[in-house]
Amino acid sequence: MYSFARRPKEALKEAREIIAGCIGASPEEIYFTSGGTESDNWAIKGTAFSGRERGRTVTSAFEHHAILSSCRAIEKLGYPVLYLPPDDDGIISADCLENFITKDTRTVSVMYANNEIGTIQPIGKLAEIAHRNGALFHTDAVQAVGHVEVDVKKLSVDMLSASAHKFNGPKGVGFLYLRKGTDICPYVDGGAQEGKYRASTENIAGIVGMAVALKRSCEEIEVRKAHLQHLEYILLDRLNQYGFDYRRNGKGEHIPGNLSLSFKNADGEALLHRLDLMGVSVSTGSACNSKSTELSHVLTAIHLPLEYAYGTIRVSLGYENTEEEVVYIADCIRKILAPKLMKRS
Amino acid sequence: MYSFARRPKEALKEAREIIAGCIGASPEEIYFTSGGTESDNWAIKGTAFSGRERGRTVTSAFEHHAILSSCRAIEKLGYPVLYLPPDDDGIISADCLENFITKDTRTVSVMYANNEIGTIQPIGKLAEIAHRNGALFHTDAVQAVGHVEVDVKKLSVDMLSASAHKFNGPKGVGFLYLRKGTDICPYVDGGAQEGKYRASTENIAGIVGMAVALKRSCEEIEVRKAHLQHLEYILLDRLNQYGFDYRRNGKGEHIPGNLSLSFKNADGEALLHRLDLMGVSVSTGSACNSKSTELSHVLTAIHLPLEYAYGTIRVSLGYENTEEEVVYIADCIRKILAPKLMKRS
Repeated sequence: MYSFARRPKEALKEAREIIAGCIGASPEEIYFTSGGTESDNWAIKGTAFSGRERGRTVTSAFEHHAILSSCRAIEKLGYPVLYLPPDDDGIISADCLENFITKDTRTVSVMYANNEIGTIQPIGKLAEIAHRNGALFHTDAVQAVGHVEVDVKKLSVDMLSASAHKFNGPKGVGFLYLRKGTDICPYVDGGAQEGKYRASTENIAGIVGMAVALKRSCEEIEVRKAHLQHLEYILLDRLNQYGFDYRRNGKGEHIPGNLSLSFKNADGEALLHRLDLMGVSVSTGSACNSKSTELSHVLTAIHLPLEYAYGTIRVSLGYENTEEEVVYIADCIRKILAPKLMKRS
Repeated sequence: MYSFARRPKEALKEAREIIAGCIGASPEEIYFTSGGTESDNWAIKGTAFSGRERGRTVTSAFEHHAILSSCRAIEKLGYPVLYLPPDDDGIISADCLENFITKDTRTVSVMYANNEIGTIQPIGKLAEIAHRNGALFHTDAVQAVGHVEVDVKKLSVDMLSASAHKFNGPKGVGFLYLRKGTDICPYVDGGAQEGKYRASTENIAGIVGMAVALKRSCEEIEVRKAHLQHLEYILLDRLNQYGFDYRRNGKGEHIPGNLSLSFKNADGEALLHRLDLMGVSVSTGSACNSKSTELSHVLTAIHLPLEYAYGTIRVSLGYENTEEEVVYIADCIRKILAPKLMKRS
């Protein structure tokens, strides 16, 4: 209550207003968390635990592990979960949700954009179906916020997760949008912070950094998008010129700069290591699961043929990347794969 | 897996080793969290949910809200909790736990030092009783780590919570010590970070800052303790000289620099505001619950007479405070309370 605390309080208020403004929310609907993973855990577990009955949670089979593992955790405690199959283009269609949703569904959670293949889901339609069936709707928008226009009111979602470091903010901070009146339990219980909904002394520096980063990203969305799509075009054009037999995974609209590329009969992990020696950092499978060499659950879910799946790398371009750099990436891939280069049949 | 990630990985490893070394743990027993509150939530809920049966949780009635609210949350889900009463000196005695513990107890959680009145609990003895009864033992050591010597092996605790900003580290980061083999569920589910026990991209900057701060604090524990106890002596001596009718709450060993002072027939909140105008920042009740003007649960639990309880302030001295400053605090209190100064009867 002392005056010494006024400056951080003001900073917190301003950060909340900035972030709310960036996604079309009211400031009191923004709850600061330790990152996208906590936000996802909160949405899944907080709505399951707040239900009077053990309602069903409906999600997709190719969500981020933060959602999938949270779902496994509530299943262990007796809450039923249903996993929707994406189609081979990497989309959870409205028809798919219509077919599987049940009247006892408590929460539907589908990611805004897939973190491995970048495909953007029809969130507005899915939210409408959830609401028509009496369920809450959450979207893990960790890959989307700051990269494409996201408006919680237009989408009509009840909950939305975001993570600062995905839009060039600091690591270890994120937020959960909770539409006013959403029936959810707190996830981190304790003191009276965040309107008594998320206890713990606030990570002020992280929160302020997040707000600044999001504001900058949102102001530049169109410019960055055009730049990144141009870079994507150059990279793919080169790979085509070099005659690789490869696929870009996921059809339709993508998160700008996200390219999941599967080279036929190549070894994705070997490719990663060779590229690394050349100064190019890419991932195989999912970056959040970098210790594992198993085929990612996303590539499995979209039924990518195995001869392509094991040759997958994910290239994540940022707005600071240049044309020269993506040409260099294509040339590096050529040097590595050229000896066993397979022409398209 | 790319080399660009090696530096943060090394930093994380080094931070884990430093922190483990400071509390007598092995590095793989340190799990980074978003702060003491999350660590407490994890210990309470993670052990409750991992139990095969719905075992009892035993805690104290004057824990921090991070523990108390976590206990309320599991109670709502059907897990029983028992709240031990502290004695009027602010101690949970071994006898008290012996009397109340049951054979179906899954976890005992008692704070290392109370956050409002600073009293240090007989953790080693309490842990021994818990183990003898087949229960796990957790201590919320948020107030203690970095301020008094804490050795998890000597204490024989299974779990211990700490928070960086309590030992001059950054806000929004903390850790949970988990003795190897402790039967507990992850709390934040998702990626494979922290040995698959605490998902989420690591708050590297916060973690490194925490390790540096803890190392410094631990190296200086004895020097800082002597300095703080000297400052306490000066402050109390002055207040005695001025003839106030007041109490210092809690008997026995205290966290150095923590003074809970109750002035008879004074108004703690008014005292806080007047001190604030004079440049002195103190709290009433608990700092983590600063919006509330209700009498704190701690002062209620130790049966502090109401004529004292409402006149309570908590002075938290730091190692950078000086003799001149504590004399100034005493003089400010005198100026504020002198008009209605009540001599000891």
